[in-house]
Amino acid sequence: MMSQISLADLNAADKADFVAALANVVEYSPWIAEKLAGQRPFTGINQLHAALMAAIQSAEPDVQLALIRAHPDLANKTQRAAGLTAESTDEQNSAGLDRLSDAEYAAFERVNNAYREKFGFPYIVCVRRHTKDSVLRDFETRLLNIAKTETRRAIEEIGRISALRLDQLVVADDKLKVHGRLSTHVLDNHAGKPAPGIPVELIELASLGESRVIARTVTNADGRTDQPLIGGRPLPIGRYELRFRVAKYYAERNVPLSEPPFLDEIPLRFAISEPENHYHVPLLVTPWSYATYRGS
Amino acid sequence: MMSQISLADLNAADKADFVAALANVVEYSPWIAEKLAGQRPFTGINQLHAALMAAIQSAEPDVQLALIRAHPDLANKTQRAAGLTAESTDEQNSAGLDRLSDAEYAAFERVNNAYREKFGFPYIVCVRRHTKDSVLRDFETRLLNIAKTETRRAIEEIGRISALRLDQLVVADDKLKVHGRLSTHVLDNHAGKPAPGIPVELIELASLGESRVIARTVTNADGRTDQPLIGGRPLPIGRYELRFRVAKYYAERNVPLSEPPFLDEIPLRFAISEPENHYHVPLLVTPWSYATYRGS
Amino acid sequence: MMSQISLADLNAADKADFVAALANVVEYSPWIAEKLAGQRPFTGINQLHAALMAAIQSAEPDVQLALIRAHPDLANKTQRAAGLTAESTDEQNSAGLDRLSDAEYAAFERVNNAYREKFGFPYIVCVRRHTKDSVLRDFETRLLNIAKTETRRAIEEIGRISALRLDQLVVADDKLKVHGRLSTHVLDNHAGKPAPGIPVELIELASLGESRVIARTVTNADGRTDQPLIGGRPLPIGRYELRFRVAKYYAERNVPLSEPPFLDEIPLRFAISEPENHYHVPLLVTPWSYATYRGS
Amino acid sequence: MMSQISLADLNAADKADFVAALANVVEYSPWIAEKLAGQRPFTGINQLHAALMAAIQSAEPDVQLALIRAHPDLANKTQRAAGLTAESTDEQNSAGLDRLSDAEYAAFERVNNAYREKFGFPYIVCVRRHTKDSVLRDFETRLLNIAKTETRRAIEEIGRISALRLDQLVVADDKLKVHGRLSTHVLDNHAGKPAPGIPVELIELASLGESRVIARTVTNADGRTDQPLIGGRPLPIGRYELRFRVAKYYAERNVPLSEPPFLDEIPLRFAISEPENHYHVPLLVTPWSYATYRGS
Repeated sequence: MMSQISLADLNAADKADFVAALANVVEYSPWIAEKLAGQRPFTGINQLHAALMAAIQSAEPDVQLALIRAHPDLANKTQRAAGLTAESTDEQNSAGLDRLSDAEYAAFERVNNAYREKFGFPYIVCVRRHTKDSVLRDFETRLLNIAKTETRRAIEEIGRISALRLDQLVVADDKLKVHGRLSTHVLDNHAGKPAPGIPVELIELASLGESRVIARTVTNADGRTDQPLIGGRPLPIGRYELRFRVAKYYAERNVPLSEPPFLDEIPLRFAISEPENHYHVPLLVTPWSYATYRGS
Repeated sequence: MMSQISLADLNAADKADFVAALANVVEYSPWIAEKLAGQRPFTGINQLHAALMAAIQSAEPDVQLALIRAHPDLANKTQRAAGLTAESTDEQNSAGLDRLSDAEYAAFERVNNAYREKFGFPYIVCVRRHTKDSVLRDFETRLLNIAKTETRRAIEEIGRISALRLDQLVVADDKLKVHGRLSTHVLDNHAGKPAPGIPVELIELASLGESRVIARTVTNADGRTDQPLIGGRPLPIGRYELRFRVAKYYAERNVPLSEPPFLDEIPLRFAISEPENHYHVPLLVTPWSYATYRGS
Repeated sequence: MMSQISLADLNAADKADFVAALANVVEYSPWIAEKLAGQRPFTGINQLHAALMAAIQSAEPDVQLALIRAHPDLANKTQRAAGLTAESTDEQNSAGLDRLSDAEYAAFERVNNAYREKFGFPYIVCVRRHTKDSVLRDFETRLLNIAKTETRRAIEEIGRISALRLDQLVVADDKLKVHGRLSTHVLDNHAGKPAPGIPVELIELASLGESRVIARTVTNADGRTDQPLIGGRPLPIGRYELRFRVAKYYAERNVPLSEPPFLDEIPLRFAISEPENHYHVPLLVTPWSYATYRGS
Repeated sequence: MMSQISLADLNAADKADFVAALANVVEYSPWIAEKLAGQRPFTGINQLHAALMAAIQSAEPDVQLALIRAHPDLANKTQRAAGLTAESTDEQNSAGLDRLSDAEYAAFERVNNAYREKFGFPYIVCVRRHTKDSVLRDFETRLLNIAKTETRRAIEEIGRISALRLDQLVVADDKLKVHGRLSTHVLDNHAGKPAPGIPVELIELASLGESRVIARTVTNADGRTDQPLIGGRPLPIGRYELRFRVAKYYAERNVPLSEPPFLDEIPLRFAISEPENHYHVPLLVTPWSYATYRGS
């Protein structure tokens, strides 16, 4: 966990300290912090981030291009070996880019090279908002764009990256809307009650490479999980499976079941497309039926 | 497909032909058919099968034991190489016992030997009513029984095997209740109509070894499949997954979807425990919700 | 039940008998049957009805107008007292126009007069496809039309009336698509089985006047009703309520219930808008939950 | 709203003030408050109420009987005219006992007289936990008991009445568990979002007399109601109907609907049996389907 600083302290700091504090919010581009220093005080973190984006958007095209080019390639082993900023390393690891299979690595290298060759700058994406799968799909979609669109998209993604870095760095009264939440709830329609003690797994599905369990928990007395399945961060765009096991729950309550039970492991497969939103994916269940929906 | 004979012809046949016709209904035991010959005419195939079971159940214990011992071991490579009856080969293959993985083969050999050692006769099961998984589970359960129980169980299974063989061999006005049916239905609750053109796969799930696709089809104009997913045979006891793909269906109808779509491949996982029954496992679906149940 | 005649006999009849047989298919307009007589033989009832409609549609405007004017007003007490054709009387009664409340009678008289005053001919509607409520709504909608539209609409309705009269009168190999079907099904998701013995009522809801029970039955062993709730006739456009009682069913099966039971009488309220279609309105139920949908 | 007093002040008051403050917690029985005065200080309102119940339960039978007899008859016009305590009047009115139909009044009088004749004391029930319907049903059930059971039941009900009176009177850090909550939630499974702007009515159903609307509201941006449908009080035992209107909501969103719409007014009929609990009765809806369940 990196150390944090309050917005009040940022407002009060001398210019050099302010610039140093924000040095890594945008990759290798201290000129932005320098510009912001003169605009203080900021009344909130949203205002600070808006000012940062305004600085980038009002910069000359060549300055914007330099900013974009200051970013590393995704999943580039040579660059990783040579050393990324700590922030970039953390972010790339969050999407699993540090543990690519050979097939995945080859896929990333291919699109990365194609992108750089077409546009002359690296593909930039806020990887904390993605899974490996969705990064690749995003890559392929954006490769079809014209350069002007991609310059705009790159700056958008820099905006998302910097918002998340600010959110981690600065303590303020207001909050940037950069976090999502994935939650579930098991309701036993056989007994008319929430179902406690149901094992729940969350799996991130991968097209290439291995799907992996990213959360494992058990429902509490209210049929919910004590913590959101994903929370306090963006929900990575991608495909997921929730798995519940219900046969033991019913057997322990002496509900007559067939052998093997008609329902036991119940998979709910769904995709997340809005990283900053709330996804509630409940399970309404009896030994003979179940339902799910995108709830709220 | 073996050739068939009508019940009328069986009733009218001379004794030798009658015995020859029924020779393979019960493994290597022509004495049963000889006994039945004198009880003709039979008014239906159910009456014929009941007489067959009565003949077995009223036989002396040593005759019953000889009958049981006339059956082959399950999945025994040596016996398979030496040659089983055509009926046994077909039946064992139907449950996939001709394509066991090494782990599965080892598991079968282990329980087979343990069973034969404990009871002094081979484990008999009507394999057409089972998957590999459920045979193994049945094996392990029955291994705990006492010999008397297993003699009774073996005769029950011989009853089921012979009923299926009679059903294939004899054409009569009545039917033995030996077939089940697995069906599905996709109802689009977004449009209030059956959903045509939905790809459907049925997978037999395996604990050891590989799960395998056993049916692949597409829903018709009524949201159903032209043929039952399994029909005209017992439903093998075991765990299954139905998989539907719905995103393309909705995209083609210009329904607004997220990217990736919240729902696309929908797996319904369930178990079959009653081979002679009807399982209807429908999907009620919108782009944001779905439900299933054991229907009728 | 009026006596029926086969299409073969109609084809073979001499002209006078043919015209007499079809005399009442279109109200007081034997010229149509006379025209059709010369077009025989008809290969099916659909072809016969198409020829009838072609005859009307190709008639001169003043002939069409005379045809329209040959029809009685709806729910007109004076005309009813003076005597309608037997067909008109049956049809008007089927929609309950013989048992109007005073408020309903006043509403009908008001729109009838307004319609006749605006267009110079009576409002024609195929009342077998309607409830009192939907006739009134249809009336009010059509009153806004221009005369040309209403002439076309009147002929369409004469087409529907004549199709239903032909369907009752003529026996042929093919069928006119003039009947709908309303069915239900109770599935007990608590037990994973169809629910037998559930009392079911079907109520036609009325905005003015009294709602009335139009079917009362009990589910059979398959959770369905032995007869469709409405069948063998068009489904009258209108609003309905299905009522099920489930508490006794569960109590008899020793399912623990609260007192009073959370669910007992379950009303499903829905509208029918397509008289010639199939409406399946099932109930999926546990003691604590239920669901319904337009099924198929 | 009666004035309130803090538990701290009650603990510190002199005896006369303490007794005066609690005078009406139990109908005409200051001896209880006198006894409690000597047990101070109370650490919480639950402890205070437990002490009150202990005082009643440890009293001599004749004292208990006097206590029971100090309570008024339910819905007794003569007593109402002569004046009840303010608390009794409020409570009886809360269940609608001040606006009985003639049939209801006759029913109450009949059971009241029968009860008093059988047991020699008035029927006591905590009416705030009941509807008119459930009071009558409770009456009829309890009339079958023996006197000893009814003495115990009367004291239980006095306990519930006094708990509610204490809850209104005394401000403390802890809370008596005397309130329930009825809430709903409309989720639009057609759009995958909560449904705002849906009109919702809550009707209390009556067997005798008139059903009446007891809440009328509209769903907010989250598909919920700003206030619980019933909250801050016990949920009266009884039968209810929630009514939602959905056709306008879908029409405004340009969802294709039939005419009349398949679904518009949706009634959910259910019973409340646990006044101190939370009932969540949501509606999951599309234009062609809906579901409900007892949620949490």
